[in-house]
Amino acid sequence: MTAAAAAAGSLAVVGLGPGPAGWLLPEAEAALALATDLVGYIPYVARVPERAGLARHASDNRVEIDRARHAFALALDGRHVAVVSGGDPGVFAMAAAVIEALDAEPAFRAVPLRIVPGLSAMMAAAARLGAPLGHDFCAISLSDNLKPWDVVLRRLGTAAEGDFVLALYNPASKARPTRLGDAFAHLRSLKRGATPVAFARAVGRPDERLHLTTLGDADPALVDMATLVIVGSSETRWVEGGAGRRWMLSPRSYGAPR
Amino acid sequence: MTAAAAAAGSLAVVGLGPGPAGWLLPEAEAALALATDLVGYIPYVARVPERAGLARHASDNRVEIDRARHAFALALDGRHVAVVSGGDPGVFAMAAAVIEALDAEPAFRAVPLRIVPGLSAMMAAAARLGAPLGHDFCAISLSDNLKPWDVVLRRLGTAAEGDFVLALYNPASKARPTRLGDAFAHLRSLKRGATPVAFARAVGRPDERLHLTTLGDADPALVDMATLVIVGSSETRWVEGGAGRRWMLSPRSYGAPR
Repeated sequence: MTAAAAAAGSLAVVGLGPGPAGWLLPEAEAALALATDLVGYIPYVARVPERAGLARHASDNRVEIDRARHAFALALDGRHVAVVSGGDPGVFAMAAAVIEALDAEPAFRAVPLRIVPGLSAMMAAAARLGAPLGHDFCAISLSDNLKPWDVVLRRLGTAAEGDFVLALYNPASKARPTRLGDAFAHLRSLKRGATPVAFARAVGRPDERLHLTTLGDADPALVDMATLVIVGSSETRWVEGGAGRRWMLSPRSYGAPR
Repeated sequence: MTAAAAAAGSLAVVGLGPGPAGWLLPEAEAALALATDLVGYIPYVARVPERAGLARHASDNRVEIDRARHAFALALDGRHVAVVSGGDPGVFAMAAAVIEALDAEPAFRAVPLRIVPGLSAMMAAAARLGAPLGHDFCAISLSDNLKPWDVVLRRLGTAAEGDFVLALYNPASKARPTRLGDAFAHLRSLKRGATPVAFARAVGRPDERLHLTTLGDADPALVDMATLVIVGSSETRWVEGGAGRRWMLSPRSYGAPR
């Protein structure tokens, strides 16, 4: 490390996982213990316990790039900054915003930067459901804040054509409440109505709720921003467990006789 | 829990993450501490420390379904079994094999079953590289042990058409050494040669190695079975970091003016 970098403090982008302590990686816990400053979206900053000497810089949603610039500025001022993110910071979260801020400002290169991964919402939801991601899959954000809606539709179409399992992030929007219904309608034109679908809401938190349905019956009104939607491939099926439980399975093999 | 289930022991499918202790979830560590029996592929079983009263049932690769049946049989015999998997058990790993075994044998429904997620190799590699999965992406296994190779090619094609970032699992095979070269050739016919590509080998382990290249220059000879290959979208780019470091970025926005 150069003298300049040592003087510059440091920046860690830290994944907090979906919520429970059992799903926080030890590396993330250690990074939080070393931080002098927390930067992030209000509910994620609130998850980190108070500690003497730990400054909090919580901000509202949709200001990711400002937040990232602020974190670099604090680090250049000698602070040890943790930018906190729910789930994994690399999946539709703060790692990209931080690297974008770095790309726009060469002075930020003096800051030692690392990304500390976390358990993604997708993997947590899959664990509760069984093995819905046991075969090839795609992760798609349905938000059209940062990309045109026709790109979302094109990706849903190509993913359906490739018969991938789909993990749909950011499925609901108060500003655009019809988007998920439009997405389901598009998928229904390309896939069987009997395709298994799961809504996995707030997995790992006290208000966790799993809803198992099919593409034909999937009701967008049951989905909010805390929900991850998983849509099966043509091979995904339900498997009976004990005590009335059903598991969602995307088998390892594809195209094999049943 | 019913009396039958209580007598039946239990089965947990446990994700060990990519390797280092800092990437093992506390829930996984707790599940391992409760286990009387470990079942899994030899190198994963070997990762769990010895402990009095812990029986080990390590098996070679490609016997996943036998391994899953054996785990259920042990649990029916009253043992508390942890089926261990590298990375996340839900991603091209043991969770699917265990649910498939459950599907084939109704007697296994008496066994209380849970999946304990883990940090996937994909998320670990992404953290080292920056934010390659910061936008919509697909995970595809290149193995044709369990699906026809033409399905692999079709998925690569549709994923390229949708301009997804690609995370390629199981990219190398001693039995079929030309597969990755064939996959790169197919992608080169559909995507720019300058598309950023990363080979992330053994991330988190002592022999970790990152190789940054492009689709045009990607050399399959540098890839082995411990490597995850990430191929960018049309928007993925390199970002200069400090000290000669380059980061791989798939920006949050898509189709925006640069």
